[in-house]
Amino acid sequence: MRMTVAYDGRNYAGWQRQSKATTVQSVIEDALGAIDSGPVRVFASGRTDAGVHAMGQVVHLDLARELDPAALLRALNSVLPPEIRIMKTAMVPGEFDARKHAVSKEYRYFIWNDAVLPPHLHARRAHLPVLLDEARMQAAASSLVGRHDFASFTANANRPTRDTSRLLSRLDVRRRGREITIIAAGEGFLYKMVRSLTGFLIKVGEGAESPASAREVLAGRRRTGRVPTAPPEGLYLWKVRYTP
Amino acid sequence: MRMTVAYDGRNYAGWQRQSKATTVQSVIEDALGAIDSGPVRVFASGRTDAGVHAMGQVVHLDLARELDPAALLRALNSVLPPEIRIMKTAMVPGEFDARKHAVSKEYRYFIWNDAVLPPHLHARRAHLPVLLDEARMQAAASSLVGRHDFASFTANANRPTRDTSRLLSRLDVRRRGREITIIAAGEGFLYKMVRSLTGFLIKVGEGAESPASAREVLAGRRRTGRVPTAPPEGLYLWKVRYTP
Repeated sequence: MRMTVAYDGRNYAGWQRQSKATTVQSVIEDALGAIDSGPVRVFASGRTDAGVHAMGQVVHLDLARELDPAALLRALNSVLPPEIRIMKTAMVPGEFDARKHAVSKEYRYFIWNDAVLPPHLHARRAHLPVLLDEARMQAAASSLVGRHDFASFTANANRPTRDTSRLLSRLDVRRRGREITIIAAGEGFLYKMVRSLTGFLIKVGEGAESPASAREVLAGRRRTGRVPTAPPEGLYLWKVRYTP
Repeated sequence: MRMTVAYDGRNYAGWQRQSKATTVQSVIEDALGAIDSGPVRVFASGRTDAGVHAMGQVVHLDLARELDPAALLRALNSVLPPEIRIMKTAMVPGEFDARKHAVSKEYRYFIWNDAVLPPHLHARRAHLPVLLDEARMQAAASSLVGRHDFASFTANANRPTRDTSRLLSRLDVRRRGREITIIAAGEGFLYKMVRSLTGFLIKVGEGAESPASAREVLAGRRRTGRVPTAPPEGLYLWKVRYTP
């Protein structure tokens, strides 16, 4: 079975099951355990960090019970908290793997760029009162698109060195009134890569870095203090794409 | 001083101060007490019920301290919880009264009309999975516009009889994808009037009542079981208008 999951990440310690904290994975697996006969594991397209949201996380799972997709969706949503919703369910061949078979992922990062953050956007937008120049941000963003070594835009300090080359197929900056949206798509992303790219684009939008400096930082292939990590509450795992 | 206030009403027992429950008014007055020298009362354009939201509630108040509007906005937002935000502050003549001088009010009621309510809309939309016919709803709504006795569309059981005539200047039903918005504007509204109008319009949208029956219920001038009260989480006090 394949499921598309949306969640408000504000009260969760991220996607992945942990022994001492409530995570989205553990809440879904516990709910499935109450529906199926015995424990069920769900396998996601990837993790999300504490406070990060999802509109289209994709998971796969195997059930012992025979349950059609519509019945599973209803049963799960009736026991899950309203902050986690199963948006879609579908039968897939047994070999379908949500992580391995993903061909691309899209993240969106939302910034509320005004003096006051309206109450209904609390924990759902990054709040930046200082006016950002989205044209400068777009110029920097465009220069980062393509296959590059993104070591400068990841937070891998405690992890073993690995291949930090990724294809970033899209990095767009849009403004609609007081809201700025950054759209990042690619075949895969490094740890905290979207928040690192966003953190640097914000510095460009504030005027603290030039658009041209993006390529310079990229070429350094080493994370430095020039690249801050943008806060988690603005980030949404938006969509995961698979070959039909 | 005049302030425009927005709030997410989900965790509050409505606007008006109560002895045993947390209300929006009490939280704002307590915050002002910490800023000004001594207790401050705020006077709103009107009350909102438990769970009801506001984008543009308007209040007036008098401060003992001399504080300019911009400083007051910053100081208050720094102590208020993120679910309550001061969106605007302005100096007004001492005789300005947020309730008495309001010339019209606009409420919006939001319905998510799809099988699953996305997590970020929890407690912020009424959720109705059954497909509503918004053209039928608009036909019923249009027939209610004007000055009428709205006794059939209020919940006044425990209150003394008073004048239940009101001018409803606008009642519109819009659909945008899976979201239906009901816009109600008028010089003033009876207790639970917008939620009662909405409750009846939903029945029309479901096919349980005909569009023509709206006038019949109105003419009855008595609240009956034909008019349910729509849930609070869909309702927003959107805007209060004053003569310039």
